[in-house]
Amino acid sequence: MEPRAAKREIIQRVFVNRSLTLENIKCYGFDMDYTLAVYKSPEYESLGFELLRDRLVSMGYPHEVLGYMYDPTFPTRGLVYDTTYGNLLKIDSNGNILVCTHGFEYLRGSVADCYCSVDEYYPNKFIQRDDTNRFYVLNTLFNLPETYLYACLVDFFTKSSRYKNCMKGFKHGDLFMSHRSMFQDIRDAMDYLHDTGTLKERTLKNLDKYVIKDPRLPVLLSRIKEVAKVFLATNSDFNYTEKWLVTNPKKLWRSYFDLVVVDTKKPLFFAGGTVLRQVDTDTGKLRIGTYTGNLQHGTVYSGGSSDIVCDLLDVRGKDILYVGDHIFGDILKSKKRQGWKTFLVVPELVKELHVWADKASMFEELKHLDIFLAELYQHLDSGSQECPDISAIQNRIKMVTYGMDLCYGKMGSLLRCGSTKTLFASQLLRYADIYSTTCLNLLNYPFSYLFRAPLVLLPHEAAVESQTKEQITELSEHVLKTSSIKV
Amino acid sequence: MEPRAAKREIIQRVFVNRSLTLENIKCYGFDMDYTLAVYKSPEYESLGFELLRDRLVSMGYPHEVLGYMYDPTFPTRGLVYDTTYGNLLKIDSNGNILVCTHGFEYLRGSVADCYCSVDEYYPNKFIQRDDTNRFYVLNTLFNLPETYLYACLVDFFTKSSRYKNCMKGFKHGDLFMSHRSMFQDIRDAMDYLHDTGTLKERTLKNLDKYVIKDPRLPVLLSRIKEVAKVFLATNSDFNYTEKWLVTNPKKLWRSYFDLVVVDTKKPLFFAGGTVLRQVDTDTGKLRIGTYTGNLQHGTVYSGGSSDIVCDLLDVRGKDILYVGDHIFGDILKSKKRQGWKTFLVVPELVKELHVWADKASMFEELKHLDIFLAELYQHLDSGSQECPDISAIQNRIKMVTYGMDLCYGKMGSLLRCGSTKTLFASQLLRYADIYSTTCLNLLNYPFSYLFRAPLVLLPHEAAVESQTKEQITELSEHVLKTSSIKV
Amino acid sequence: MEPRAAKREIIQRVFVNRSLTLENIKCYGFDMDYTLAVYKSPEYESLGFELLRDRLVSMGYPHEVLGYMYDPTFPTRGLVYDTTYGNLLKIDSNGNILVCTHGFEYLRGSVADCYCSVDEYYPNKFIQRDDTNRFYVLNTLFNLPETYLYACLVDFFTKSSRYKNCMKGFKHGDLFMSHRSMFQDIRDAMDYLHDTGTLKERTLKNLDKYVIKDPRLPVLLSRIKEVAKVFLATNSDFNYTEKWLVTNPKKLWRSYFDLVVVDTKKPLFFAGGTVLRQVDTDTGKLRIGTYTGNLQHGTVYSGGSSDIVCDLLDVRGKDILYVGDHIFGDILKSKKRQGWKTFLVVPELVKELHVWADKASMFEELKHLDIFLAELYQHLDSGSQECPDISAIQNRIKMVTYGMDLCYGKMGSLLRCGSTKTLFASQLLRYADIYSTTCLNLLNYPFSYLFRAPLVLLPHEAAVESQTKEQITELSEHVLKTSSIKV
Amino acid sequence: MEPRAAKREIIQRVFVNRSLTLENIKCYGFDMDYTLAVYKSPEYESLGFELLRDRLVSMGYPHEVLGYMYDPTFPTRGLVYDTTYGNLLKIDSNGNILVCTHGFEYLRGSVADCYCSVDEYYPNKFIQRDDTNRFYVLNTLFNLPETYLYACLVDFFTKSSRYKNCMKGFKHGDLFMSHRSMFQDIRDAMDYLHDTGTLKERTLKNLDKYVIKDPRLPVLLSRIKEVAKVFLATNSDFNYTEKWLVTNPKKLWRSYFDLVVVDTKKPLFFAGGTVLRQVDTDTGKLRIGTYTGNLQHGTVYSGGSSDIVCDLLDVRGKDILYVGDHIFGDILKSKKRQGWKTFLVVPELVKELHVWADKASMFEELKHLDIFLAELYQHLDSGSQECPDISAIQNRIKMVTYGMDLCYGKMGSLLRCGSTKTLFASQLLRYADIYSTTCLNLLNYPFSYLFRAPLVLLPHEAAVESQTKEQITELSEHVLKTSSIKV
Repeated sequence: MEPRAAKREIIQRVFVNRSLTLENIKCYGFDMDYTLAVYKSPEYESLGFELLRDRLVSMGYPHEVLGYMYDPTFPTRGLVYDTTYGNLLKIDSNGNILVCTHGFEYLRGSVADCYCSVDEYYPNKFIQRDDTNRFYVLNTLFNLPETYLYACLVDFFTKSSRYKNCMKGFKHGDLFMSHRSMFQDIRDAMDYLHDTGTLKERTLKNLDKYVIKDPRLPVLLSRIKEVAKVFLATNSDFNYTEKWLVTNPKKLWRSYFDLVVVDTKKPLFFAGGTVLRQVDTDTGKLRIGTYTGNLQHGTVYSGGSSDIVCDLLDVRGKDILYVGDHIFGDILKSKKRQGWKTFLVVPELVKELHVWADKASMFEELKHLDIFLAELYQHLDSGSQECPDISAIQNRIKMVTYGMDLCYGKMGSLLRCGSTKTLFASQLLRYADIYSTTCLNLLNYPFSYLFRAPLVLLPHEAAVESQTKEQITELSEHVLKTSSIKV
Repeated sequence: MEPRAAKREIIQRVFVNRSLTLENIKCYGFDMDYTLAVYKSPEYESLGFELLRDRLVSMGYPHEVLGYMYDPTFPTRGLVYDTTYGNLLKIDSNGNILVCTHGFEYLRGSVADCYCSVDEYYPNKFIQRDDTNRFYVLNTLFNLPETYLYACLVDFFTKSSRYKNCMKGFKHGDLFMSHRSMFQDIRDAMDYLHDTGTLKERTLKNLDKYVIKDPRLPVLLSRIKEVAKVFLATNSDFNYTEKWLVTNPKKLWRSYFDLVVVDTKKPLFFAGGTVLRQVDTDTGKLRIGTYTGNLQHGTVYSGGSSDIVCDLLDVRGKDILYVGDHIFGDILKSKKRQGWKTFLVVPELVKELHVWADKASMFEELKHLDIFLAELYQHLDSGSQECPDISAIQNRIKMVTYGMDLCYGKMGSLLRCGSTKTLFASQLLRYADIYSTTCLNLLNYPFSYLFRAPLVLLPHEAAVESQTKEQITELSEHVLKTSSIKV
Repeated sequence: MEPRAAKREIIQRVFVNRSLTLENIKCYGFDMDYTLAVYKSPEYESLGFELLRDRLVSMGYPHEVLGYMYDPTFPTRGLVYDTTYGNLLKIDSNGNILVCTHGFEYLRGSVADCYCSVDEYYPNKFIQRDDTNRFYVLNTLFNLPETYLYACLVDFFTKSSRYKNCMKGFKHGDLFMSHRSMFQDIRDAMDYLHDTGTLKERTLKNLDKYVIKDPRLPVLLSRIKEVAKVFLATNSDFNYTEKWLVTNPKKLWRSYFDLVVVDTKKPLFFAGGTVLRQVDTDTGKLRIGTYTGNLQHGTVYSGGSSDIVCDLLDVRGKDILYVGDHIFGDILKSKKRQGWKTFLVVPELVKELHVWADKASMFEELKHLDIFLAELYQHLDSGSQECPDISAIQNRIKMVTYGMDLCYGKMGSLLRCGSTKTLFASQLLRYADIYSTTCLNLLNYPFSYLFRAPLVLLPHEAAVESQTKEQITELSEHVLKTSSIKV
Repeated sequence: MEPRAAKREIIQRVFVNRSLTLENIKCYGFDMDYTLAVYKSPEYESLGFELLRDRLVSMGYPHEVLGYMYDPTFPTRGLVYDTTYGNLLKIDSNGNILVCTHGFEYLRGSVADCYCSVDEYYPNKFIQRDDTNRFYVLNTLFNLPETYLYACLVDFFTKSSRYKNCMKGFKHGDLFMSHRSMFQDIRDAMDYLHDTGTLKERTLKNLDKYVIKDPRLPVLLSRIKEVAKVFLATNSDFNYTEKWLVTNPKKLWRSYFDLVVVDTKKPLFFAGGTVLRQVDTDTGKLRIGTYTGNLQHGTVYSGGSSDIVCDLLDVRGKDILYVGDHIFGDILKSKKRQGWKTFLVVPELVKELHVWADKASMFEELKHLDIFLAELYQHLDSGSQECPDISAIQNRIKMVTYGMDLCYGKMGSLLRCGSTKTLFASQLLRYADIYSTTCLNLLNYPFSYLFRAPLVLLPHEAAVESQTKEQITELSEHVLKTSSIKV
């Protein structure tokens, strides 16, 4: 596939879910955090974890909790936290449970020797993920420290001899620590870190440690600006935006943008939005009143909505390519509500690609097991009494899947669990037109580029094609098998 | 792919979106209309159209409307009706408009000679399909006559010299025929036909003309009943269910089911549901009170919910395979709310498969044009000034796409428009585990069968694989191209 | 008060909650059923009850139920049905329970000898009446037969030796008759009677028995038409409206109105409304399309909204006096959503006034007991240890209250329970500007009349006034008491 | 009325809307701010106004705004702010507009010489007050500074020659100051003052200036504690509660309460509530986990709900008397959702009572004009052609009403406008069982006291009584008139 493209390093490529002609894009929009402003991993997550952990202890959590250190190999983005039972769940797009952990303990199907099985919690191995009051999706990179801390707390209380384990929490004398209240505590601590600016302050104090400065960013923005309009739309406030961005570009950062909007309150920004205010860039304060004249270069706004951005820049939704890292707030909403073109930044792809290339043989084995299994049934019909014994193969599939998962980290890949795609992966496929490890990879393509999505056949179409081929060509068994693997 | 399976006629196959082991299924559920009770097409749609059309004329619509006859080559299931502008829209899963017709007129991008362009109605070529107050999805096979009638009315009033065309309707003196009021009239007429039983009565009077009796149905139900529990859950009332089903099986139809539930009010059935009542099968009347004992064979219930069905049959959601034809009411809801396994019946597949096999060359050309286009950009990067001229290729792609569409019917395929999948196709992929032209195709598989979904790679995984291959194997250009097509 | 007005018979008076100057009214609107079309009571309720009861038996309810006859002395309008426990509740505006019956049994506070007490069902003697899923308000005169039937069914099953009493229903072998399912059955039967037109048909067949023809109605409508615009807005359809109204006026009934709107779907009519259609008065069918010209006299419309009525008649909400009998659908909604002036027709007032005049002494006793009670406490302050024994007085108050209730009927007055006003009374006070036994009483006032509401003082204002008086005038104890009674 | 009660100073009385027997109250609940913690008026409002005003200027509002000083004679509690047009509205319970100001300008009906009339903004003199997105009710005493500031800003921009007046705001060059954005600015500034604790800090620094210390408060709480349970439920946090309350009682303030709940998030507290946490009274921090043992004296909780309070104290809603100053958050919600007994603290009553006593003659005149007006119509019926000329009387009524209003302040009384009651008054009547200027007035009544509400007759009942009287007694014209006034 794409033979000449192969010359581009995989890691520098932009991947395509739906074909997109850059030439038609009249306007590029960017989110800031984790999109233009990139943090060093795991240093930044470790910082977040420690601040969060310390905050909890200062709120009264036992001092033993200070003993936990951030382990980047445990959490994966996109997990779901069950506030009733304190479990971390990895699910597919329909709510089926792929992995379930309680603390650092994996819960299995229905094994006798484990103290609690998935079935006990979820008899149908399924959650109604619309129940957002109970299930909290840890969607963003900012959620990683929090994800790990949920596991730490459950681990601590489970192991502590002072506390008695109950389904919905832990009991110690007259005191009941419910999973829901621990969830609330961690969420409150997160809000505290953000509202007081503690995390931002620590980051700005030690930029070299936490932030990646890439000289290619000003190059990218300059080149885009020559061919299209450019805007920044961030939920951060002006002061943080200003402080962060000056660390990077060579000239006044605002000059790279036709329009800068801070305090956007995405995803609300893509629906009704809020009042649009101008920011006084000298003082960082909001100007009173609303500017109603034409767009002035270098003006910074606060609030507003995606509709207002379209008006100010005089572009239509389908002419905008919006680049962001937040699958829900940036990508799903801009696509579903406004019909924007979307570019999802997925920093984890660096690792995902590495593992995939390294462990190709494991997935290859999975495929072969899968096909082998299927072939056992091919000669049977509904009248057959025969029933093949497949338990050995199924066990091997489970082992390989689990082995693959561990190559990515304790909770496995961001995108799949064996042959099943995660909720995150299915949202990436549905809502991101293109995606890459970093927005800088746009530098590797001309602004007239056509990102072509492979034509994916529906199962019945693939079946016709495969049959048709069989009838018209005389291909060896070997070739047939190779091609069928791909479909 | 599936070499031995190829021996099964394509038309008799069950296609797989997500792997499913029949052996694990402890319970089979069936919808009735268009699933067990199959109507002859286009005779049944013609009947529906005529009753609907005549009803409108009796409501005061001009007699000229009686001149319209049902044309099965025009409507496609899954279209969206815009009640503001009277357009029929074919959209993809994100709300992008693929085809737009006004009456029988296709609306184009922005062509000078056509009286109204898509851009005029939808500047962003996009609709917010969540706006269900404005956009009505014609999801079921029962909607086909209605779909065609919308087009007929717009056609009639547009061409009538008595009426003046406006954006939101037609004017004649002091009278304004808004698209919204015509929509309401047709919906009211539909409800009238259903509530008065007019359509059902006419169907039952001429069963041979409208209904397909298939001796394999009792065979299928009998065989399933030997290995699993079986239930029927239909929105129809008891009398129609009774009348319809007696025409088919050889013995008392209720004996094929462990549980029969009528008046289910799907999709409400999969959420809170309603009060469960027992039906007196002698009189067809509801029994007062609720039966609270154990399940008795042959008992017929009215109302209830999916949870009650699980309780009565003592099965969990993931152990049920539910077979239905309604993508929203049967499949999406049972999957998303309850985690059931799903089998979507898609009668149109007969034609879709036929066209696909016949016109393989057109899709092949589309693929080649697509790849050709992409290759023009492969050697460029963001510094390139060069911009390939692709207008000729793009025009050819449009022509081939339009040509393909016409092979299926005037509104094209149920599932795709050129290389883009429709909203219906994307829902089929997400919510139906397996699908086929008819539920009878289950007869072709043993009840221990493993329906295997091909392992589909994410774009970046495919890229790795393709690159890896390149490095390790020495394959000819020809083979490489062939395999890349599939990914 | 109103000394000369006293010459008007009380029964012919219009009562005033908020002052209203008829001279400012530019438009009069009327509901039809129970407002212009008046039914004979209890004949009409008996008819409704019998049809409903028979329908239930034909649905499978025991034949013994046929033994129940409508007893007009039992039900009162405005009761609340608790679908969980099958109780009829009389409540005040805050949800406090005033009277509670189960079948025909009164439930008391916490008396040992009664089989179930109010406390057992409602420990707080209070319901959250916003929980409309559980509590159903029987607001209209059409609900009276239904109200009685709820009591009958509970009475029957409670007494039947075949059934076992449970909190939420009745059990007989494997069958459970829940109160909720009986509620659903009666509601379904009501809908059946209305949708099939059974009740209307029977009414029209025997107009003399069920309908009051009053020659003053055409006089009233004619006189209003001379001074203001007049419209009719009814939820009934055209045919019933037509059939009913021709029985009354001497000339073509439609000529009394500037505008007739049928199928209004109140209360939706006062919010968004529906599409406005014209009715063909020759055939009774809806015309297709919307009439957009000026208002033509005698035109009949279907649907629409209160905003459209204002536009068509060119009047503002505050210039309209709307006359109806439905406290929620007619009066509350037109007042709260649109600011219309409102006239509530309360046929029960005939009886209420009669009882009130007859039993003045009972209420007088209640007042004296009340004052006597209060005076026991007048000399005490928070330091007092003394605590008067008031149980004898309280018992007497309960007895008098109960005695008063019985004068109105088994469930007491529509408007009060002893000294407490019902939910219905408080809605009447809040939303109806004026009210009367019949709209015909408007004939007793000139069209320039000022309906004056007495100036009601707030408790602290009354206290000031009373104190002031005391200081300046030397009035005898007797006079003082008399005046204090009134405040 | 209440002859002996007259000995209690009016100002020390508790007024009664619905009879209430203190002897039945098993539990007393208190809000803190403006209920137990009482602020000096207008010093405290002035402080709030100045902080708010200064914050706006620091946000960029013109320095001229600093010239405005708080004028306690202007704002009245309970006004409604129209965020679209920037008007302050005084409305009745149905949404009819009683007074409307724009800045400090009164808007009249439709007078030629005023630059804008009420009709232009509100043609129906009516607002749909359910539209909470547009209309903001300034319900609490904390809202007073804000109310005045809305008027100041509109006044400033209206008069400023730099700004052009538009319906929805003010224009200055390219800048548009919409009323909505000014509303948002003031709300944001309010939140800033509360969240940063600026207002609280300033208050605590100068307690003598801003806070009323009343030695009777510990007396009241001690006495109550002897006869019933006592709790405090405040939306303030623990630290402020602690700091405030220690300034008052002689012993540890918490010892006066059986239960203290801070951070209650009323009105959410009366619905679902939040997680209940314990407060460490040494550090002021929340304890982790939930205390599940029996209630321990002196424990302070955070969060929770009214249901939890009932459980912890083992009381039912109807046994609780809740004392608060917030008509919506304290009184309406506790009554409507939980059936609690309610005591509304209304500090403004001091002034209201004073004015009422002083200006009795004005209201007396209003009554006489009203009666005089009514009598002009008494001898007419619907056949009369005569139409009295009442314009002179109506003008006099308007003048007296306006004159009365001014006695209370520029926006008139909290409770009435001439003979019409305000929204606030009607909510006070519906939801507060008793009310007084301060909760300390409970000291003037024994804990066995019966607060008796006068029996208020419905208009038709009053008519009967008046007529009956007429027939049976021979009273002089004079006496008749006197009594009729009261009804």
